[in-house]
Amino acid sequence: MNSFGRIFKLTTFGESHGEAIGGVLDGCPSGIRINMEEVQRFMQLRRPGTSSLVSPRKEEDTVRILSGLLPDGTTTGHPIGFIIENKDVRSQDYSSLSQLYRPSHADYTYHHKYGIPPQAGGGRASARETAVRCVGGAIALQMLQQKFGISIFPYICSIGEATLTDQERSELSIERTYSFPSRCPHPEADKRFSHYLLKTATQGDSIGGLVQCIIKGVPIGWGSPLYDKLHARLAYAILSINATKGIEFGDGFALAKKRGSEANDAMDVTNERAVFFKSNHSGGIQGGISTGATISFRVAFKPTPTIGIEQESITVTKERTTIKGKGRHDPCVAIRGVTVVHAMTALVLADEALVSRATAPL
Amino acid sequence: MNSFGRIFKLTTFGESHGEAIGGVLDGCPSGIRINMEEVQRFMQLRRPGTSSLVSPRKEEDTVRILSGLLPDGTTTGHPIGFIIENKDVRSQDYSSLSQLYRPSHADYTYHHKYGIPPQAGGGRASARETAVRCVGGAIALQMLQQKFGISIFPYICSIGEATLTDQERSELSIERTYSFPSRCPHPEADKRFSHYLLKTATQGDSIGGLVQCIIKGVPIGWGSPLYDKLHARLAYAILSINATKGIEFGDGFALAKKRGSEANDAMDVTNERAVFFKSNHSGGIQGGISTGATISFRVAFKPTPTIGIEQESITVTKERTTIKGKGRHDPCVAIRGVTVVHAMTALVLADEALVSRATAPL
Amino acid sequence: MNSFGRIFKLTTFGESHGEAIGGVLDGCPSGIRINMEEVQRFMQLRRPGTSSLVSPRKEEDTVRILSGLLPDGTTTGHPIGFIIENKDVRSQDYSSLSQLYRPSHADYTYHHKYGIPPQAGGGRASARETAVRCVGGAIALQMLQQKFGISIFPYICSIGEATLTDQERSELSIERTYSFPSRCPHPEADKRFSHYLLKTATQGDSIGGLVQCIIKGVPIGWGSPLYDKLHARLAYAILSINATKGIEFGDGFALAKKRGSEANDAMDVTNERAVFFKSNHSGGIQGGISTGATISFRVAFKPTPTIGIEQESITVTKERTTIKGKGRHDPCVAIRGVTVVHAMTALVLADEALVSRATAPL
Amino acid sequence: MNSFGRIFKLTTFGESHGEAIGGVLDGCPSGIRINMEEVQRFMQLRRPGTSSLVSPRKEEDTVRILSGLLPDGTTTGHPIGFIIENKDVRSQDYSSLSQLYRPSHADYTYHHKYGIPPQAGGGRASARETAVRCVGGAIALQMLQQKFGISIFPYICSIGEATLTDQERSELSIERTYSFPSRCPHPEADKRFSHYLLKTATQGDSIGGLVQCIIKGVPIGWGSPLYDKLHARLAYAILSINATKGIEFGDGFALAKKRGSEANDAMDVTNERAVFFKSNHSGGIQGGISTGATISFRVAFKPTPTIGIEQESITVTKERTTIKGKGRHDPCVAIRGVTVVHAMTALVLADEALVSRATAPL
Repeated sequence: MNSFGRIFKLTTFGESHGEAIGGVLDGCPSGIRINMEEVQRFMQLRRPGTSSLVSPRKEEDTVRILSGLLPDGTTTGHPIGFIIENKDVRSQDYSSLSQLYRPSHADYTYHHKYGIPPQAGGGRASARETAVRCVGGAIALQMLQQKFGISIFPYICSIGEATLTDQERSELSIERTYSFPSRCPHPEADKRFSHYLLKTATQGDSIGGLVQCIIKGVPIGWGSPLYDKLHARLAYAILSINATKGIEFGDGFALAKKRGSEANDAMDVTNERAVFFKSNHSGGIQGGISTGATISFRVAFKPTPTIGIEQESITVTKERTTIKGKGRHDPCVAIRGVTVVHAMTALVLADEALVSRATAPL
Repeated sequence: MNSFGRIFKLTTFGESHGEAIGGVLDGCPSGIRINMEEVQRFMQLRRPGTSSLVSPRKEEDTVRILSGLLPDGTTTGHPIGFIIENKDVRSQDYSSLSQLYRPSHADYTYHHKYGIPPQAGGGRASARETAVRCVGGAIALQMLQQKFGISIFPYICSIGEATLTDQERSELSIERTYSFPSRCPHPEADKRFSHYLLKTATQGDSIGGLVQCIIKGVPIGWGSPLYDKLHARLAYAILSINATKGIEFGDGFALAKKRGSEANDAMDVTNERAVFFKSNHSGGIQGGISTGATISFRVAFKPTPTIGIEQESITVTKERTTIKGKGRHDPCVAIRGVTVVHAMTALVLADEALVSRATAPL
Repeated sequence: MNSFGRIFKLTTFGESHGEAIGGVLDGCPSGIRINMEEVQRFMQLRRPGTSSLVSPRKEEDTVRILSGLLPDGTTTGHPIGFIIENKDVRSQDYSSLSQLYRPSHADYTYHHKYGIPPQAGGGRASARETAVRCVGGAIALQMLQQKFGISIFPYICSIGEATLTDQERSELSIERTYSFPSRCPHPEADKRFSHYLLKTATQGDSIGGLVQCIIKGVPIGWGSPLYDKLHARLAYAILSINATKGIEFGDGFALAKKRGSEANDAMDVTNERAVFFKSNHSGGIQGGISTGATISFRVAFKPTPTIGIEQESITVTKERTTIKGKGRHDPCVAIRGVTVVHAMTALVLADEALVSRATAPL
Repeated sequence: MNSFGRIFKLTTFGESHGEAIGGVLDGCPSGIRINMEEVQRFMQLRRPGTSSLVSPRKEEDTVRILSGLLPDGTTTGHPIGFIIENKDVRSQDYSSLSQLYRPSHADYTYHHKYGIPPQAGGGRASARETAVRCVGGAIALQMLQQKFGISIFPYICSIGEATLTDQERSELSIERTYSFPSRCPHPEADKRFSHYLLKTATQGDSIGGLVQCIIKGVPIGWGSPLYDKLHARLAYAILSINATKGIEFGDGFALAKKRGSEANDAMDVTNERAVFFKSNHSGGIQGGISTGATISFRVAFKPTPTIGIEQESITVTKERTTIKGKGRHDPCVAIRGVTVVHAMTALVLADEALVSRATAPL
């Protein structure tokens, strides 16, 4: 239940306000040179405290690798165990919350399921856990880039009502997403989104967002026909990220309105007899298996539930109360969510790479 | 790869135009009285040839149970093996197709992955396989109804551009969905949708559709905090159904546009001190775990790729060609998809029921 | 629970006295030419009624393949579903048994676990289920032989007190085991074992036996360091066969009495600088991973619990009673067990072949 | 591959001479009070440096719990992450070994499988990894004792040629095994075994040993009929322990020599109508499912392969060489193996407890 993957498998542990969080990455083949500085840079993209658009919580998120790599970073084929110490734990921000259920948080469901009252900071439900996914994802990414030439480009395409114009949509720099504070890879849109977000935050409120993900370089033939369709695996992974409420592939929900004659992706050959698709409504996957075309999907993140505006709720003893957040929360979880989508996508593909090897024709 | 579930697990086999399809349902506890006539009635809801809105292929879809049930239908705790013989196999409809790739079908990806040329009728990729899911789902449903009081109500909420009015939306009879040919549980909307669909079919085209699913009776506490979030498991299951392109939970993609103050579900208590939610934007799941409120999600089905209109494509030897479907295809796969969504939802919940028992507090 | 394997996975169903038994073999790569006559011949090696040394029950054990193979027997990469109809079901032999617990049978434990009273013929616990394992094993064998050059040679090395002499042990024809009724591949020993067994059977009694298994051709490097050590996987598979009570690898229990200086397998190189082991006390596995040397293990089968001698037992209502078997039972389950050991060993190795591919250095 | 268990699941990482080893215990239900001092005492039973009979390596084996427990030790239902820092790492003892293959070690198979030359101390193959299993096992033990009343009693029953007399066998104090340095719970036998072992060690040699394990309190009905037979799961777990070469249940290999009339366990009822077995040749398991009687099995450990006597071997460049161990090795791995058998048995049973809950009749 705390593991993801079939062969390339990440198992995680740790609570937001405990001593440390960490994980075990199992199934990574030997002989891959992992650049740990690059892993640490990837962690930097997700961690809080880096701009005024995200939570001010200060966490270095320094990854301590305990096993599985040689001193030069080469994978040994054995499990990569790692921990991240929790540094900036301020439970006092949360102490008043321990006796009540925060609206649209996991407090109530956790209390009922485990018999443990709401914890400071949300415990295991906290987005802090996603730091561990990013370690696994960063290693998966290096494997995918080095050995398969795959690149993953997630980015923000809308925040609340702020969306991209058609013009902007045609000018995106998806290779440089992380140089934009809002994670929207367009200079003007980034400014507009950032302004919109800060205004919302100033009002004590939070806002939802939409993340688009583009994947290039996946070869034809990854995925499985039935239950492990490539997009089913991706949906499973992506909707396991906190605050996600929906996912669509290719033209997604728009296809529910279209005719077959509009929605089909016709095939053609170049003069050099290379096969290509004349359109990509399907988002690079047919019958659950990659077509070799660009894979694309979109993810909806709901607004952060903790807000600085008074809300109605109840206590654990079922008394009515009100609550007003004072913690160090992200006004829009989708922004740091971009990196987590990046990581989970990499984990799915790395696993798929190995499963596809296992069952390739003999 | 051809199994779904962790404890309550369905494994399936069979190709569209082979001798038989079938499956093994493992992990079903002993002592549940399964009404096999009800299972057969459920099969009837999915099978083709029942109205002018679905494929005219004639399949009785008679389920032959080979093991796991006592003569009176009581489960023994052992695997329930079953087969469905394929009766109406007319490969000649497809013979001209065996040398070319049908647009937006799995032919091309399968050929590359398995080295086997496109098969008559699509083989394993065919929607025929979903009959097997319906057997597993029908048994899961009886367990959920009898032992947990859970009911699942999927229905069509739009076909192509034809949608429900607000008025109609408030008058749905979701308990009687299967009495409407279009699977939209509203008399006027059903007529409108049916008319729209027949017109599209007459033009030789196909159309996409949207399925809504409502689940009542799931107790608080089902699901897991991390990778096996209840909605992640549902998404995994639902997006493994042929032709699905997206899923959203509760208010779904609309939440990406909302503020926290609008999106949060406040909690309250009745005078009898029963906890309730004042809204249900989240669709009955918080932190990956059921809240006890109604669970809801929506699924986008793309249009059937096989159409009676000439389309461009290529042959397996990479020559340009055209194709015009003559097979017995559904003009809108979402309609029979309603029953498959029903079945897969039941399989997810039955599995979750057992996993939750396993890890409940000791 | 009714599946075995991680990638190459067999799922089975069916009871001894039901309509049919069967299974699904998933994960078999495409492009392997399966000779179905050879599969059927393998079934013949296990099936009852073939000599006076085994149960007289008449079962053709004709395998009906329902999916996963092209007409010429080539695997498609999709699950291979199959059934075997039960023909010679004579429940009347067992009717008197349905109200009592047979000594050293699963009746009592099953009744308690599932709440279902002892079934005619033992139901799922019956050795009949092993026919299904043999179908999966026969297909695995063909993959291992064709693609990896692996051969598996199981044989009887003792029946009760009847054992091989040192001389006989040096003269075994392990490639021709199945031409000997007792499955001991030595003409004199076979006669002696057969005589011993018939004498025991005539007395209404049954007898235990020891199966040795020799595996040639497994390349260096199959298996995993920790929980999935190659011999741990083999033990898991072999001890899942009915009536097995122990397994040992290489010199096995004898190593518990030896010194390191006696037990170690020294390494050496030939003049052609090929590595070899000067001894093979370890049975071809070091640290859980195959060394390239011959793999060997021995399995203890207990005597068939059903005997024609009166035994004390109790009824399901806890009254004392006596029981005297009249069914068609094997006097020594180890004999037909040879084929089942053969099949399960093949399933373990086929799975290991694919898992090793998945995690091989990139 | 580095995980064990289906619901109650331990995942481990770490090499003998790396920074730290550790693990994640997932699936442990909430609400169990874990006494961490008791866990630490259990670690003490396995750790080296505690007597002249085991390796002098000094390791505190202090367990640092990072998650999953409340301050008072109560389980939260979330994964229990933990690490053990490696303190006494003296790679210089092994430096001369890095270029050669130690006889009957995993060096050669690892080198071939992973492409990584033999590591100082054996890396992942080292018995040091078993410390992590003991943490998981110690927690499992507390759950089994508190919630199910189960006790596990493993002990040494022979070391090399030194065995118990029949008299001694009837006088064992299996509740106090850990107070005897040789782990044989009989004062005279312990002295004899210790003397025998020290003499062997003085000669620079090592010796094999036999561990018996007795399990009391397992209720009727744990285990599964087919592949997950209780003894198959135990065999899988136990044979995953370093240096194990065989396992037998109940009368084990002796049953291969017996007749059914001798081997069957007759059932009877007491005057109070309690069911009991008049014998227990089967070791408490019938048809793969626990009978409620005492479960028993025996495990063969081979002698430690590293010895202080010169042995022939080869280098990684395939030159002949000799090797003479100077490390801090156990003369008989079976002794510390007792605690590891204890731990793995607890892990199997804890997992079985939860799986049985999942599939119990509804």
